[in-house]
Amino acid sequence: MDIFDIINGRSSYRGRYKPISVPREDLLKIMRAGAAAPSGCNKQTTSFIAVDDKKLLAEIKALIEPPIAVTAPAFILVLTRKVFAYRDKCFNVQDYSAAIENMLLAVKALGYESCWYEGHITDDDDIAGKIAAHIGVPDEYKIVCILPVGIADENVKRGSKIPFEQRIRFNGFDSARLGKE
Amino acid sequence: MDIFDIINGRSSYRGRYKPISVPREDLLKIMRAGAAAPSGCNKQTTSFIAVDDKKLLAEIKALIEPPIAVTAPAFILVLTRKVFAYRDKCFNVQDYSAAIENMLLAVKALGYESCWYEGHITDDDDIAGKIAAHIGVPDEYKIVCILPVGIADENVKRGSKIPFEQRIRFNGFDSARLGKE
Repeated sequence: MDIFDIINGRSSYRGRYKPISVPREDLLKIMRAGAAAPSGCNKQTTSFIAVDDKKLLAEIKALIEPPIAVTAPAFILVLTRKVFAYRDKCFNVQDYSAAIENMLLAVKALGYESCWYEGHITDDDDIAGKIAAHIGVPDEYKIVCILPVGIADENVKRGSKIPFEQRIRFNGFDSARLGKE
Repeated sequence: MDIFDIINGRSSYRGRYKPISVPREDLLKIMRAGAAAPSGCNKQTTSFIAVDDKKLLAEIKALIEPPIAVTAPAFILVLTRKVFAYRDKCFNVQDYSAAIENMLLAVKALGYESCWYEGHITDDDDIAGKIAAHIGVPDEYKIVCILPVGIADENVKRGSKIPFEQRIRFNGFDSARLGKE
């Protein structure tokens, strides 16, 4: 499968998953893709916890209200550490975001679907903090995202996008040039 | 080229570039990959300016001190807008980071090299602001990153990484389990 097909064909999947477990080999391949992302000053602030134990997965899902990806056979939890790259500069959000995008592409390339769940678990009710407490994540790490992984059991829909031509320009900002060069 | 080879083989290139221009078709393919990235609540806060005009490119390079990618035949400037996804939540950093990672992979897939220059231009001396002023970027947009694009004229070195096993876990945080499952 061509990388451009994967990049341009990826979408956020919020449907049901088939009750088929994800082999460890595939979870490792996905996390390896995440770890391969660049990071500010190479600080590698992102790490990953794959959850495929049925009991633990059910316990984690029970902490998420309203629920997400209830039928997913595996979750990958994305963890970050606020490490200063230099002086007071910290690029951990950029780091984990690049890692997540790599994993979303890897998920798609392996025939699975996923969705970037961040705002839902890092909101004021701090679902991420409850999950972290449940599995004993130390304070210096923060769970920032859940990626469910599994095979889609419903049609995968594409989100609508602003026309590409409105998001790019050549050699300046002049809006008259928009998409015309 | 396999997507996993591209993801795992990508690295930050800071060497000389060959004096060979990048076809518009390739710059469009790269920016299209960037625009295909997911964004928080689908707000699509990221946009792109490709610079391949020799005069303008030289003017922009002259604003960057210390200089970067002086031999690159093209730059892609990454722009963001701080749009609220919901309430006071804004995911524009996540949005542009995912877009940048997609573009770095596209660059590599097309046989070019690049490097994520963000801290260097968004530091206290505000090089990004000078570039924005030079090309007339309105205030609601912020240039956050430069991606040079070109063919490497030196060996591409891989950065060193923490062993993968130290960045992943299965079903919990217990460090005794580290990489053993």
